[in-house]
Amino acid sequence: MLVDLNCDMGESFALYKMGNDEEMMQYITSANLACGYHAGDPAIMNKTVELAKKYKVGIGAHPGFPDLIGFGRRYMSATPEEIRDFVIYQTGALREFTAYHQVSLQHCKPHGAMYMMAMEDEKIARAILEGLSKINPNIIVFAMNNSAVEAVGEQMGIRVAKEVYSDREHTMSGSIVLTRKGSEITDYDHLANRVVRMVKEGKVITDKGEDASVKAQTVCIHGDTPGAPMLARKITEALRENDIQVMQISDIIT
Amino acid sequence: MLVDLNCDMGESFALYKMGNDEEMMQYITSANLACGYHAGDPAIMNKTVELAKKYKVGIGAHPGFPDLIGFGRRYMSATPEEIRDFVIYQTGALREFTAYHQVSLQHCKPHGAMYMMAMEDEKIARAILEGLSKINPNIIVFAMNNSAVEAVGEQMGIRVAKEVYSDREHTMSGSIVLTRKGSEITDYDHLANRVVRMVKEGKVITDKGEDASVKAQTVCIHGDTPGAPMLARKITEALRENDIQVMQISDIIT
Amino acid sequence: MLVDLNCDMGESFALYKMGNDEEMMQYITSANLACGYHAGDPAIMNKTVELAKKYKVGIGAHPGFPDLIGFGRRYMSATPEEIRDFVIYQTGALREFTAYHQVSLQHCKPHGAMYMMAMEDEKIARAILEGLSKINPNIIVFAMNNSAVEAVGEQMGIRVAKEVYSDREHTMSGSIVLTRKGSEITDYDHLANRVVRMVKEGKVITDKGEDASVKAQTVCIHGDTPGAPMLARKITEALRENDIQVMQISDIIT
Amino acid sequence: MLVDLNCDMGESFALYKMGNDEEMMQYITSANLACGYHAGDPAIMNKTVELAKKYKVGIGAHPGFPDLIGFGRRYMSATPEEIRDFVIYQTGALREFTAYHQVSLQHCKPHGAMYMMAMEDEKIARAILEGLSKINPNIIVFAMNNSAVEAVGEQMGIRVAKEVYSDREHTMSGSIVLTRKGSEITDYDHLANRVVRMVKEGKVITDKGEDASVKAQTVCIHGDTPGAPMLARKITEALRENDIQVMQISDIIT
Repeated sequence: MLVDLNCDMGESFALYKMGNDEEMMQYITSANLACGYHAGDPAIMNKTVELAKKYKVGIGAHPGFPDLIGFGRRYMSATPEEIRDFVIYQTGALREFTAYHQVSLQHCKPHGAMYMMAMEDEKIARAILEGLSKINPNIIVFAMNNSAVEAVGEQMGIRVAKEVYSDREHTMSGSIVLTRKGSEITDYDHLANRVVRMVKEGKVITDKGEDASVKAQTVCIHGDTPGAPMLARKITEALRENDIQVMQISDIIT
Repeated sequence: MLVDLNCDMGESFALYKMGNDEEMMQYITSANLACGYHAGDPAIMNKTVELAKKYKVGIGAHPGFPDLIGFGRRYMSATPEEIRDFVIYQTGALREFTAYHQVSLQHCKPHGAMYMMAMEDEKIARAILEGLSKINPNIIVFAMNNSAVEAVGEQMGIRVAKEVYSDREHTMSGSIVLTRKGSEITDYDHLANRVVRMVKEGKVITDKGEDASVKAQTVCIHGDTPGAPMLARKITEALRENDIQVMQISDIIT
Repeated sequence: MLVDLNCDMGESFALYKMGNDEEMMQYITSANLACGYHAGDPAIMNKTVELAKKYKVGIGAHPGFPDLIGFGRRYMSATPEEIRDFVIYQTGALREFTAYHQVSLQHCKPHGAMYMMAMEDEKIARAILEGLSKINPNIIVFAMNNSAVEAVGEQMGIRVAKEVYSDREHTMSGSIVLTRKGSEITDYDHLANRVVRMVKEGKVITDKGEDASVKAQTVCIHGDTPGAPMLARKITEALRENDIQVMQISDIIT
Repeated sequence: MLVDLNCDMGESFALYKMGNDEEMMQYITSANLACGYHAGDPAIMNKTVELAKKYKVGIGAHPGFPDLIGFGRRYMSATPEEIRDFVIYQTGALREFTAYHQVSLQHCKPHGAMYMMAMEDEKIARAILEGLSKINPNIIVFAMNNSAVEAVGEQMGIRVAKEVYSDREHTMSGSIVLTRKGSEITDYDHLANRVVRMVKEGKVITDKGEDASVKAQTVCIHGDTPGAPMLARKITEALRENDIQVMQISDIIT
């Protein structure tokens, strides 16, 4: 059994620090790099690509809405074409830093409100996927289970990685319960075991206490979750004990 | 004799219009597209790439400082590495729109204060050129005559296009006299003839009335100069009458 | 009979021009000045306050969402408190320019998506009004007929000016039909007569063809409507012919 | 003997934290609050005004250049009038939050590159002071010893507070040696004693080892200096031991 571990990275901005990028790089296999719209700036993108290269972590674009004050978490009315253009802009900006460091761009995972809107709205999903497939036919797109991005991506023949979340509650449909502050984490072992079960059995207990089916090709660990490196370590250990190999998504989805 | 005509384009922003892009596209052979830092936004970049493709005009990135309020005309203290990263970011963003429209990125011309600083400061010139050459070894960089970008570019083996200006005064060193409002243009024929002389004889009368030597591989026409399309037409006609062929820069510099 | 005419102003940004501010100032009695979030910048705010002072036009803040790319027209998720703070920030910024020119701040009219959200959502309306009443108990707030701002403002004892629109269709509830591009205007006399009827009879034919009741204390003319100055002139003439006096809102609502 | 202690505050932004505002509030008597251009946002400004009120600390505006990526530390070409308008905008935005909390605005201290430019350039100093004096004739302006702001402020009859720095090296002229990262602080007692000497004797050993004269009406402690709260505590203790009373600047300068 194989699984990818992903984490949002490069979310510092200017003199402001966020996350424990270097520590997290040791555990994950795919990094979603902020592209300057909700977080990140050119200098930070450059350094974070360099860091991902050092740790041999797959690099993905993590485009968001132009919403620095809201950290890209504000839902925002925009046409599918406007959103597609936001994605192309940011993906290109990041891709140029991968070119600068002679590594390749592995994937794209929209951020925050844009992620949620793409998952729920078929037109937005289609516009983003149409854009991404033209600029990079080989790119992998991260998608929530049972989402519009999953459905449209499969129709269009785009590589989609089905994602689950280590530190958020899942709903019956495979979606997640958004919380602004990150859930309070007290029991890392519990979360690590939940990840193992999602990967191994394709099952997770939802926020309502029911058992839902999920496909876990990549597992998200939010870098700003308190104790994220500890959580990452626990997940890594639990996966190893269960003979699940952690591997970057481009080696899993072919 | 061959010469390229270039113009800044895509400098609209949001609902704000600037320039006469479609009209100018008919005359020019290379377009410098704003990349969102001093002007332009993703939707406008997308449309302007499409427009340049329609008119078969060579597309270049026109990166500036993060200075929307100052239209990128404010000199700004920044390290060479910071400026390089600004250029990589914006060039990548634009390049992704060229990929989306299946055309290629021909050149890069820094904008406004960044252009002037790169021309004058060898460290900045070197950082920008190092960045550009890694992301795109074949890219053409526009440079003022006798500038740091020209000198460093030639050292590094990067293709540099020597630029003169149709609507600005030149100084003895090949530099230009910056005016915030665009010079008042009353005599288009005079300016057109000045362009012809720069291309043909490599000579221009400076702001001090002396005769300076310049090499004119590409001629800039500022799109926000009042009467820019008329100026472009006059220049085009004058060049034709003098058997100078207007051709995009990538076909001139090989 | 008395009525105020209001227009959005100061919506230029950096080198970008929008609207015909000086021309419109001759017709209107209240100006809503952009405050830098969706349009406007400090230099433009300064000049526009000066212009309004010259024409003895009542000055209001026109705060919007932090959304330059979307011109403040994007609906955006934000808590009532966040929106209140956006309003306080921008109103204060503008008020300081009125202090600089020794005039007073007459009113506040939220812009674009923020206006619509405040009109529809009681919590947002309450937060904005609570903020405004603390910073300036005498301020007049512009509100759509039958809106949350009207209802909450009256509960709180805040001066509310009921607003109708010269260049937008009204709905049965007194709301408006938003169009991004401004309605195509061909018949200025028709629109001018519609304004007269709203003021005189308190009636307007809605987008569905029915007759709705409205109270018209202030009439909005959008400055970016094509032909806005012509429309303003026609409205002014029609009002005069009907013995309706145009007067700034602070002299109407006491 | 009396002295004011000031610190930059409210420099967090969005989800990003900077400084130890609440801890520092216990030691200082005047707080310089970021106003959204180089740091801070409306929600943070609101909370920081509330915090300063709670600790009875004098509140000042800390306006900077529109330069979030550079934290307002980039020197930027701008006309004196443009800078004045940046100051009016930001001061007004902050003043409205003081109005909301029913406290008053005590002072203004430009930030970063804007501070340095105002201190060195008489025209910029004059434009800022002309603006501030019109919007608030009673405001206190912080100025470096022997600076343009000090000279022009005294000419114009504006209250100027002469400032020295606890954690930066002084030059012979009273200016400071700017370091991007904040000086490495190892010896808090040394710095505390240096402050005492500046207040008591009006003397400081410069970066060149000479003895310079300074007038210390207010002492700056940078909140992002590592160990800032410890430094503040040591300074407070050293001042007390030397019978120097710490008091907010509006009670010192009358």
